[in-house]
Amino acid sequence: MTQTIQPAQGTRAHTRTVMVSEIFGPTIQGEGALIGKPTVFVRTGGCDYRCSWCDSLYAVLPEHKGEWQAMDSAQIFAEVRRLSGDTPLLVTLSGGNPAIQPLEELIELGHQYGYTFAIETQGSVAQPWFAMLDYLTLSPKPPSSKQVTRWERLERCIVNATNTQPNHEIQICLKIVIFNEEDYAYARYVAEQYPAFPMYLQAGNHTPPQTADKIDISGILDRMDWLIQRTIADHWYGVTVLPQLHTLLWGNKRGV
Amino acid sequence: MTQTIQPAQGTRAHTRTVMVSEIFGPTIQGEGALIGKPTVFVRTGGCDYRCSWCDSLYAVLPEHKGEWQAMDSAQIFAEVRRLSGDTPLLVTLSGGNPAIQPLEELIELGHQYGYTFAIETQGSVAQPWFAMLDYLTLSPKPPSSKQVTRWERLERCIVNATNTQPNHEIQICLKIVIFNEEDYAYARYVAEQYPAFPMYLQAGNHTPPQTADKIDISGILDRMDWLIQRTIADHWYGVTVLPQLHTLLWGNKRGV
Repeated sequence: MTQTIQPAQGTRAHTRTVMVSEIFGPTIQGEGALIGKPTVFVRTGGCDYRCSWCDSLYAVLPEHKGEWQAMDSAQIFAEVRRLSGDTPLLVTLSGGNPAIQPLEELIELGHQYGYTFAIETQGSVAQPWFAMLDYLTLSPKPPSSKQVTRWERLERCIVNATNTQPNHEIQICLKIVIFNEEDYAYARYVAEQYPAFPMYLQAGNHTPPQTADKIDISGILDRMDWLIQRTIADHWYGVTVLPQLHTLLWGNKRGV
Repeated sequence: MTQTIQPAQGTRAHTRTVMVSEIFGPTIQGEGALIGKPTVFVRTGGCDYRCSWCDSLYAVLPEHKGEWQAMDSAQIFAEVRRLSGDTPLLVTLSGGNPAIQPLEELIELGHQYGYTFAIETQGSVAQPWFAMLDYLTLSPKPPSSKQVTRWERLERCIVNATNTQPNHEIQICLKIVIFNEEDYAYARYVAEQYPAFPMYLQAGNHTPPQTADKIDISGILDRMDWLIQRTIADHWYGVTVLPQLHTLLWGNKRGV
């Protein structure tokens, strides 16, 4: 991940550094609105949240900082180009919380070469550069996460993201991980607040890497089944209910 | 499935009968562009194809005709309303080949009540009423099916579907079930012919109900994994690769 590329003529150098936990792919996006789409993941290091069931603590906890790498945008994009064989594709910015990083230069650089950018963030930090994204998934965390939603910040994320330049379109959606009835009620509330945005419900993985030796696929599928029945019992038909496909395919394996 | 409803005043009676194999749901759509969306399935009986790996032969083979029911549109829609608790949702027309049935009255009736309609068909029979649909999934069958694609008919399906009334939008996509390298090459060819339409690749189920006692989930996931790697090796990033979610959740169980 140490290759560099020269900035295109006429563009400025990319000097702001981003904390990177891992860059991997192409694989398919395993969840949400872009499920099944080939993508390279850029997972940044660092997070303002500590979700109880976080499945990427290696990109969250300070004790993992030594595993992260400070990279500038040109270095990150060089790695994305190498992995994708220089063929433009969807880049997924994930974390940790990628919204705490200065990613605008990477997005600008990638766009010049035809790459598109999706971000996954909890909506706790709003950046002006959200408006440059092609896809924004806001994933506010339900009660089971033990985090507190700052609604005015979520609101600010949407305001920023919709402040696009002419001729640029962004697709915004909401995604809520559901573990229990309380989480489900939270998702209903969020959907009521933001009826204009597609809502995705995701059955949670109660056996993330750090808490269990082995992923409990059957338990995850049971929760998925419950979630489908719960949603349908409410006649909540405007929503989309999905599992994490990558956990079904590859368990808790990293880098896929 | 024998309830009737009165046609709304000013509309004509719904007298043309449709052969129906089963009506079930709401459940989620398990595959393709609408994966995860709550829907009621109307599965029609009868098919002009005999795919080698068909997973719904009970809706295809003439020896199952005795299990099918001739219903008019009002009867079908009454059942859809009952199942959905009178709350509008997505109705998925599947089969068999639903394109050999007179479904225009059902679509017209459903639209009056806010229901939307998706169809899944191989594209061997083109109907003028395709233009009334909200979603058309054309699923031409690859070599492993042992069926022969009539390209001029697939073309006619698209021409018909895009001949919409003003103010009506239809979303068209292509979906190819993949079992092997030959199927994959076929999918590449179809994608080249129709670059304007989103293409979905679906890992096939080699253990459909009639051929195996038990579904081979692990074998299906292996094929899915192969398909992802195969697509990425080609840098074919514009495609979407998905499994059949319902088989992962519920195996070969019917009515879910």
